[in-house]
Amino acid sequence: MMLPESVSQSPDFFFRQLLDYESSTYTYLLADTTTKEAVIIDPVLEHAERDTQLIKDLGLNLKYAMNTHMHADHVTGTGLLKKLLPGTKSLISKSSGAVADIYVQADFDVQFGRHKLTVRSTPGHTNGCVTFVSYEQGIAFTGDALLIRGCGRTDFQEGNPKTLYNSVHNQIFTLPDTFKLYPAHDYKGQTSTTVGEEKHYNPRLTKPLDEFIKIMENLNLPHPKMIDRAVPANRVCGLHDVP
Amino acid sequence: MMLPESVSQSPDFFFRQLLDYESSTYTYLLADTTTKEAVIIDPVLEHAERDTQLIKDLGLNLKYAMNTHMHADHVTGTGLLKKLLPGTKSLISKSSGAVADIYVQADFDVQFGRHKLTVRSTPGHTNGCVTFVSYEQGIAFTGDALLIRGCGRTDFQEGNPKTLYNSVHNQIFTLPDTFKLYPAHDYKGQTSTTVGEEKHYNPRLTKPLDEFIKIMENLNLPHPKMIDRAVPANRVCGLHDVP
Ligand SMILES: [Fe+2]
Ligand SMILES: [Fe+2]
Repeated sequence: MMLPESVSQSPDFFFRQLLDYESSTYTYLLADTTTKEAVIIDPVLEHAERDTQLIKDLGLNLKYAMNTHMHADHVTGTGLLKKLLPGTKSLISKSSGAVADIYVQADFDVQFGRHKLTVRSTPGHTNGCVTFVSYEQGIAFTGDALLIRGCGRTDFQEGNPKTLYNSVHNQIFTLPDTFKLYPAHDYKGQTSTTVGEEKHYNPRLTKPLDEFIKIMENLNLPHPKMIDRAVPANRVCGLHDVP
Repeated sequence: MMLPESVSQSPDFFFRQLLDYESSTYTYLLADTTTKEAVIIDPVLEHAERDTQLIKDLGLNLKYAMNTHMHADHVTGTGLLKKLLPGTKSLISKSSGAVADIYVQADFDVQFGRHKLTVRSTPGHTNGCVTFVSYEQGIAFTGDALLIRGCGRTDFQEGNPKTLYNSVHNQIFTLPDTFKLYPAHDYKGQTSTTVGEEKHYNPRLTKPLDEFIKIMENLNLPHPKMIDRAVPANRVCGLHDVP
């Protein structure tokens, strides 16, 4: 594989990756450094105070607490962030089935300052999974649709391996090879990947569709330990369970 | 605090952060995308195979496996990487007391392709601690000298709070506020910070020297659980304990 040059991030684009050790979830804080408008992607309930402190330290105004999908493995921090940072609106896809202030769908632009994230619909792990793309910065947030050398499970919620395969091939692998991909999780300590790497080395998604389906149907994974608490809470943006 | 614009990374500068969940250690893979020469900072023994696979996937040639200091909390992957990727040289500071192929000291440039990391001497956590700075990319790798809203311990090895305080103030806080800082560890899921943030919000290093010394002398931390295995192994670049 050719290691391509990458797109340089604009000086006025703020990017910070954050991590939850418990569920191996990545959270992303993005901002326009001029207007101070910020968004947070996939926040985790237990870190709402950490994230709030960081947002305050940086002098940012949180516009949206947004989720790539209705998670089953952790409770979202969205509800608590809305309390801690009044004025914040929750945002999720219409097809997620979760309650939020703002519903998005394919081609919607999530605007913060002069920056924007464009929504691509990438169902298959759940019906409501979306990928947020910044074409200008050459980055995309893939949620659980595409993980680093892996992908999200398709054996619970509305999981469907064929739908997931098509989402990844039609909506993520069609981005430029140089684009950096930031997933919602990684369990091996990897923090990001690129479209080019996954097109070459993803052990599942590089297979033909029928083989992919067989792989996904034979993972024999345990029932997600947090699902019975997380999904009902996330349906109401995590507010449900706020301590 | 003003949120400053950041330095854009060059398109031909490859950067990848990696993580060890066990010891909360960050490892960094950097490369020149044109010449494919790469360096890895603070690799962890248990991830040498993961890191080797990534280096091969990306078509990189690992020039140096380098350490910010002789770690006490994990065994370095340096020795095993040298085995798995022949031609790799180990690199550490002269004053670390560890064995390596290349010894560096202040103002030494670690060159890979057209890129370089300049060594700043930042002792205090250990005598041999260094910070690697890329002035062009606006980033620095601080090891355990400066952590995100924290700093390395000074109660074992050659720890000395006064020395550490002066290192951070004279060698790290003198970098531009916009520079991104990447530490060797973080225990709260934070992945990076900036010089400006730490100058304003580091709860220890913003204090006067005498208060800082008092804080560091009263942390009452447990003996590092890996120290008796890690330090002897790291003195010989991790080769000691290779399975
Ligand atoms: Fe999920
Ligand atoms: Fe250390």
